[in-house]
Amino acid sequence: MLFIDSIVDRIRYVVGSERVPLHEPSLNGNELAYVTECIQSGWVSSVGSFVDRFESDLAAYTGASHAVVISNGTSALQVALQLAGVKRDDEVLVPALSFVATANAVRHNGAWPHFVDNETSTLGLAPLPLGSYLSEISEQRDDGLYNLRTGRRIAAIVPMHTFGHPVDMRELSKVTSLYGIPIVEDAAESLGSFLEGRHTGNVGLCSTLSFNGNKIVTTGGGGAIITNDEALAKRAKHLTTTAKQPHPWAFFHDEVAYNFRMPNLNAALGCAQLERIESFVEAKRELARRYAEAFADMEEATLFLERPGTRVNYWLQTLILSSDHAAQRDEVLKASNASGIMTRPIWELLNTLPMYRNCPAAPLPVAQDLARRIVNIPSSPQLIKGI
Amino acid sequence: MLFIDSIVDRIRYVVGSERVPLHEPSLNGNELAYVTECIQSGWVSSVGSFVDRFESDLAAYTGASHAVVISNGTSALQVALQLAGVKRDDEVLVPALSFVATANAVRHNGAWPHFVDNETSTLGLAPLPLGSYLSEISEQRDDGLYNLRTGRRIAAIVPMHTFGHPVDMRELSKVTSLYGIPIVEDAAESLGSFLEGRHTGNVGLCSTLSFNGNKIVTTGGGGAIITNDEALAKRAKHLTTTAKQPHPWAFFHDEVAYNFRMPNLNAALGCAQLERIESFVEAKRELARRYAEAFADMEEATLFLERPGTRVNYWLQTLILSSDHAAQRDEVLKASNASGIMTRPIWELLNTLPMYRNCPAAPLPVAQDLARRIVNIPSSPQLIKGI
Repeated sequence: MLFIDSIVDRIRYVVGSERVPLHEPSLNGNELAYVTECIQSGWVSSVGSFVDRFESDLAAYTGASHAVVISNGTSALQVALQLAGVKRDDEVLVPALSFVATANAVRHNGAWPHFVDNETSTLGLAPLPLGSYLSEISEQRDDGLYNLRTGRRIAAIVPMHTFGHPVDMRELSKVTSLYGIPIVEDAAESLGSFLEGRHTGNVGLCSTLSFNGNKIVTTGGGGAIITNDEALAKRAKHLTTTAKQPHPWAFFHDEVAYNFRMPNLNAALGCAQLERIESFVEAKRELARRYAEAFADMEEATLFLERPGTRVNYWLQTLILSSDHAAQRDEVLKASNASGIMTRPIWELLNTLPMYRNCPAAPLPVAQDLARRIVNIPSSPQLIKGI
Repeated sequence: MLFIDSIVDRIRYVVGSERVPLHEPSLNGNELAYVTECIQSGWVSSVGSFVDRFESDLAAYTGASHAVVISNGTSALQVALQLAGVKRDDEVLVPALSFVATANAVRHNGAWPHFVDNETSTLGLAPLPLGSYLSEISEQRDDGLYNLRTGRRIAAIVPMHTFGHPVDMRELSKVTSLYGIPIVEDAAESLGSFLEGRHTGNVGLCSTLSFNGNKIVTTGGGGAIITNDEALAKRAKHLTTTAKQPHPWAFFHDEVAYNFRMPNLNAALGCAQLERIESFVEAKRELARRYAEAFADMEEATLFLERPGTRVNYWLQTLILSSDHAAQRDEVLKASNASGIMTRPIWELLNTLPMYRNCPAAPLPVAQDLARRIVNIPSSPQLIKGI
C-alpha cells in the first residue's frame, strides 16, 4: 500500500539506510571505566560506593529527596505498592494501556488491578472519566474507598508516563484528593521527562524507575523507588535488603522482606549513564523534531509530540495512525521490520490478557482505540550524530 | 578468657596478621575481560551471549540438564517453589536453622514455613526425626499431605545445604517418597559441593543457586534454578521473563509473571567466575585442612569437617564450640572481630524471628543447640596463595 511505503521512506529519511534497532544503549562514556573500577576494587555486589552514589545522583537529578535502587523495575513497583499500603485482595487502579509489569506488580502484592481508561492527549491514565467513574462505582468507608461492585478496597492508583509523556498529574491529583487514593507513579519510562518544571515522579507518595536495557538509562537491569518521604525511603531500603536490623554480626530480621539489592556492578554502569542523560534527552528530542518534520505532511500517521507544560524524554518515538488506517497497523509493522527498521506496536490492552480478563474495568473507549493505532519507531539517541 | 585468645591465635596462625574479611570474591581471572566485552558489544541487559553461556556452563558443571539464571537467589527459590506447585496458604517444610531467605521465599508465594529440626552430622535438615514427626501430625488426602494441626496442605520441603555441607539426601528421599512431598533443594551455599559423586541439587524436583557477592561464585547478585525436567526449565524461563509469548513484535503475556532476568553484564562476571570454581574449591578445602590442623588439639572448638561420601566446597568455614562453651560465643565473636578477624554466628533460629514466631514448628532440639554454638571464620579462597 502506498502509505505504508511512505511511512517506511520517511523513517529511512531520518535514520539512514542501515538496519536500525528500536532502542540501543549508548555505552561510550565512563561506563567501562566505572565498571572496571568496580571489579578492580572487588566491590561488585550489594554494598559499594556506586550504589550510594547512584542513589544520590538519582535523587539530585529527579529532585526527589530520596532514591533507593533495586534489582528490577517491576520489583520496585511491587515494593512501592506495599509501601503505599496495598494489601492482599485490595484493588489498584491501573491504566488499561500499559506494560504488563504495571498490573503484575499489583498481583505480586496479592491485590487486583482495576483497569481505567487512557487519554489521547497524554497516552496515559485519564483523570476526567476516572472521576465520574469513581462517583458511580465507589463509596467512602472508615478504612478507605470501596468498589461497590466487588466489595474490595481501592487502595492506590498507578499513573504510568507512557513513552516518557507525563500524565496530567494536576487533574489526576484533584480526583485522587477527592477520593483519598494514594498515587504511586510508574515512571519506568519517564526518567528525563518534566511536567511544569518538576521531574515526573514527584507528585505521588512515591514513584518507580526502570533501568532495563532498552530504557534511556540502563544498569543492565534494575530500578529504583524515589520519594520525598524519608520514613518511606528508609522502609523501602529495609524491605529490599532482607529487613535485617543493623548489628556487627547478628542475623536478626524483623519482617518478611526481599533481597532486591542492586549490585554495585550495575550501579557503576548506572552512574556513568546518568552523567549523560541530558545529552540522551537532547538527542532524542532532536530525533523527535526530525521525525515530526518528516511526517508533517502525512495524514495517515503523525508523530506524537509533547504537550505544553511538559519537557519529554521521547523515550520511544511514537507514530499514531489515523483512525481509518488503524486496520493496516500490522502491515506497517511487517513492512518496516522487513526492511530492517525495527518497530513495534503499543502493548495489548491489559484487560484482554488471559490472567486479567476477569478483573474489574471501567469503560475503555480511548485505550481500545489507541491500542490499535500506535507504532513505536527507532528511538536510540545514537541516531543523532555525536552521542 | 584463655580459650578465646587461643581461638583468635589459631585463626591468626592460618590467615596471617592482616585484617581478614569473612569472604571476599576473587576477580582476577577473565572477569574484567568478559565484562569489557559485554560493554563494548552493547549487550549489557537481559538478552545476550553470556546469559546463554552461563546457563549452559552451570548445567555442565552441576550435571543438571537445565539451568535458568535469575536476578537473585531468593527470587529463584520463590519461583522454584511455585514450579513445585506451592500455593497460597500451603505449608512448606523448612529447616529452622537457615538463612532467612529460605522462609521468605515461602511467604512470597503466600505459603507458610513449617520449621523442622536440623542435625549435627550435616548441619542441615534432619530426615529421621522428620519421618516420625510427619507420622504424628499429618495425614494423606486426595490432593496431598495435610497437617492435621493447621488443616493446611504440606506442599514441599526445602533442604538447605548449610555452608556447602550436603543434607543427607538419601535418608531424606526415603521420607519424602513415603509422604509424597516434592523436594526443592536450596543449594545457595553449595555450588561446588558433591554428594556421592553427584553435584548437590540433583535429587529434588529442582534446586536453586545463589551468586551474591559473598558466595563461592558471584555475579554481583543473582541466582539460578537447575533441574533435570525440561518442561519445568521452560516454565522457569517463562515465569521469570514476563511470560511473553514469542512473537516478532506483539506483547502477549499469558500469565502473571516476573521480570527476574539476570542481565548479560552479571552473567559475564558469572562465566569468568565459574571457569575458576575448581581452583576456589581446592583453595577452600586446603584452608579447611589448615584450620582443622590448627584446631586439632582444642576441645573448646572444632572445625566442622565434611562427612564420608561428600566433597564439600567449604563455602564458609565453621567452628563449633563445645556445649559447655556455647555461653561464650558472643565473647569469641567480639574478640575475633576486635582483632580484625571477621567472624559471625550462624543465623538466628527462623522460628524465633517476629514474623515467623507463630508458624508451625516441630521439636527443634538440635537446631536450638547448634544455633548457640556455631561461628564462621574467614573463608576467602585468596587466603591460600596463588588464587
